[in-house]
Amino acid sequence: MKKIDGGICAVDGVLAWGLRKEKYGVTVISSPESNVSAVFPSNKVLAAPIIITKKAISNGRISAIVANSGNANCFTGEEGFQNGLKMAQMVSENLQIKLEDVAVASTGVIGRQLSMSIIKQLIDEALIMVENSRDASKKAAEAIMTTDTFSKEFVVQTKLNDGNIVKIGGIAKGSGMIAPNMGTMLCFLVTDVKASPKQLEVALKKAVDKSFNMVVVDGDESTNDMVLIMANGKSGEIDENFQEALEYVCIELAKMIAKDGEGATKFLEVDVNGALSIEDAKCAAKAIVGSSLVKTALFGADPNWGRIVAAVGYSGAMMDENSISITMESEGTGADIVKKGVVKAYAGTNELKIAEEIFSKKEIKITVDIGLGDYTATAYGCDLSYDYVKINSEYTT
Amino acid sequence: MKKIDGGICAVDGVLAWGLRKEKYGVTVISSPESNVSAVFPSNKVLAAPIIITKKAISNGRISAIVANSGNANCFTGEEGFQNGLKMAQMVSENLQIKLEDVAVASTGVIGRQLSMSIIKQLIDEALIMVENSRDASKKAAEAIMTTDTFSKEFVVQTKLNDGNIVKIGGIAKGSGMIAPNMGTMLCFLVTDVKASPKQLEVALKKAVDKSFNMVVVDGDESTNDMVLIMANGKSGEIDENFQEALEYVCIELAKMIAKDGEGATKFLEVDVNGALSIEDAKCAAKAIVGSSLVKTALFGADPNWGRIVAAVGYSGAMMDENSISITMESEGTGADIVKKGVVKAYAGTNELKIAEEIFSKKEIKITVDIGLGDYTATAYGCDLSYDYVKINSEYTT
Repeated sequence: MKKIDGGICAVDGVLAWGLRKEKYGVTVISSPESNVSAVFPSNKVLAAPIIITKKAISNGRISAIVANSGNANCFTGEEGFQNGLKMAQMVSENLQIKLEDVAVASTGVIGRQLSMSIIKQLIDEALIMVENSRDASKKAAEAIMTTDTFSKEFVVQTKLNDGNIVKIGGIAKGSGMIAPNMGTMLCFLVTDVKASPKQLEVALKKAVDKSFNMVVVDGDESTNDMVLIMANGKSGEIDENFQEALEYVCIELAKMIAKDGEGATKFLEVDVNGALSIEDAKCAAKAIVGSSLVKTALFGADPNWGRIVAAVGYSGAMMDENSISITMESEGTGADIVKKGVVKAYAGTNELKIAEEIFSKKEIKITVDIGLGDYTATAYGCDLSYDYVKINSEYTT
Repeated sequence: MKKIDGGICAVDGVLAWGLRKEKYGVTVISSPESNVSAVFPSNKVLAAPIIITKKAISNGRISAIVANSGNANCFTGEEGFQNGLKMAQMVSENLQIKLEDVAVASTGVIGRQLSMSIIKQLIDEALIMVENSRDASKKAAEAIMTTDTFSKEFVVQTKLNDGNIVKIGGIAKGSGMIAPNMGTMLCFLVTDVKASPKQLEVALKKAVDKSFNMVVVDGDESTNDMVLIMANGKSGEIDENFQEALEYVCIELAKMIAKDGEGATKFLEVDVNGALSIEDAKCAAKAIVGSSLVKTALFGADPNWGRIVAAVGYSGAMMDENSISITMESEGTGADIVKKGVVKAYAGTNELKIAEEIFSKKEIKITVDIGLGDYTATAYGCDLSYDYVKINSEYTT
């Protein structure tokens, strides 16, 4: 398996384009007659595009996706639903595919109607420009950004057991409302693997659980999330090599979302080992990356590790003060904070000095060994900065 | 029932004192031979004082409590446990009561040993000064403050069915790590009601569920919380009038904690009506006051109500987009935001203009009518400001 360049258009048969106007962006991706699977949020308020896309993918096959940023088209009633359908209709007519073969996604403010004149203009232009090129991939990734500060794309190729080379490309956007169980995030994956919708569903679910579901930015869960994979079957049969590559792409995109969390100045990776169950490992890891107190400590370069212990304690995971170990590391330097319940980094120790240095870096890894079992999980997050407050206190103004 | 002045010493037989030195504060409250009940956090990491106090109250009776701020005495092993016992011992020897009749509480940084020379000095002095006076009550409330910006005390008296007048006084401290199911908060209540430990337990649990358990500041759950009530039995028998008064005191103290949330510039009260169950009402109300996105919107005076809908949607409460109604109000002015699923406050409307005005006030009430059932709950919170980040990014430095 290796990372390659080229964005989503590195995948054979994929066309894309994206462009922006005022607060809106539109991305169109075409991957004709692809098998499909997707993961949606569990929020009881679901945006119109989610409802449309759930129906579109129900027969396991789509040919294109149209997405807009700047407006979530959520809590917009029948008018919003009709607007979502119109977006799909424009794409289906232009690409001469069935209406129900177009998926729709939206991200942005909740509770406002789309400005359809701008949306229509953007979709029209995207459909004229859509092509298979490096530039097209980049534009598609850029047009779905909202408060993201950089566009997110990642592509790998790997050799399948049947000898074929398969490619998987993805674009994603973050970056607030990122909670356990996804957030206001969109991720579109394309691949040329041969796989049934059911096989894609199993593969995607497994990859999302290890990646996007392990990212926490602010703990708010969105109404509009979508991770969708289109597989056009031009390459070989799905196997474990594909699965490994898919997980790699999803984890890399998830890390980008964490790094680009609203106002983030630092990236945090938390490994939890030694848990009594996979659920314990996950909830402990997510409690740490999700803790406002850990996040502000990270922002302030203050290795206030007591907050890590407290987060594990309230996470719901089984734990014992006398078994827990905590280490911190960054750029090859590590510090033992707690070892089997014994505090190593107290005032005046070299460990605490190193921990302070580590917390002043841009990418920090915290490892917690619960010391009770064999299960592990990794979660991704970022710090909580003044800019998170700034961005979110002025969002609709 | 009426609010009275005098602090906790308004209750007959109660002596108190509090004082500070450097980062530490110590409060001593004496209420001889009182029946007792307390509520503790569910965090699996429990501070030494919690373990000591759990044992102290196990026979339903204590005579005094000693509390310190500035250090949580948590994750401090055997040394921390012995230090907690020493605090109790100093009080028991001086007041000539049994060691197991002294409750201990601590709040502050986790994972550091107490500076016992300072603690000892403060307890010594508190025990010399302890008295029944207005000033003593105030000093007791002040000494348990950490990042609190004002001290919190509240006293009421009410007439019991048996004709006796009963008093209930409480002091509390917030103000970060305030989550559903309490936070880094301490609350000590004294009363002269006659009640068995079991009766106190039932009464306190009910009052805490409606008050401290409905406050969210940052969603982190503490290792050191304690709400403890001492009843010395000098007045009449416990009844529903006492219950009502106790709930009033707890709710008023809980509101003060929310108003004084770290960095808070605004107070938010959320009423949820029309839920299908009490659990639904509670989790919806707590999801709204706990949402980082609602909190930052509040700070920025941006009535981005879509975030309220999204929070109800992910709260776990049963809901339907077509049944929900949202109103906002402050200082006697109200605005209909959504009425049975229909948006009233969209761009250009008077409702949105009023909503903006309301969000610029200091105390805001949001009412959500889920429109499906008859259950209600109220939660209390505050905005998320730059100062929350500032306070918590520099906490141990």
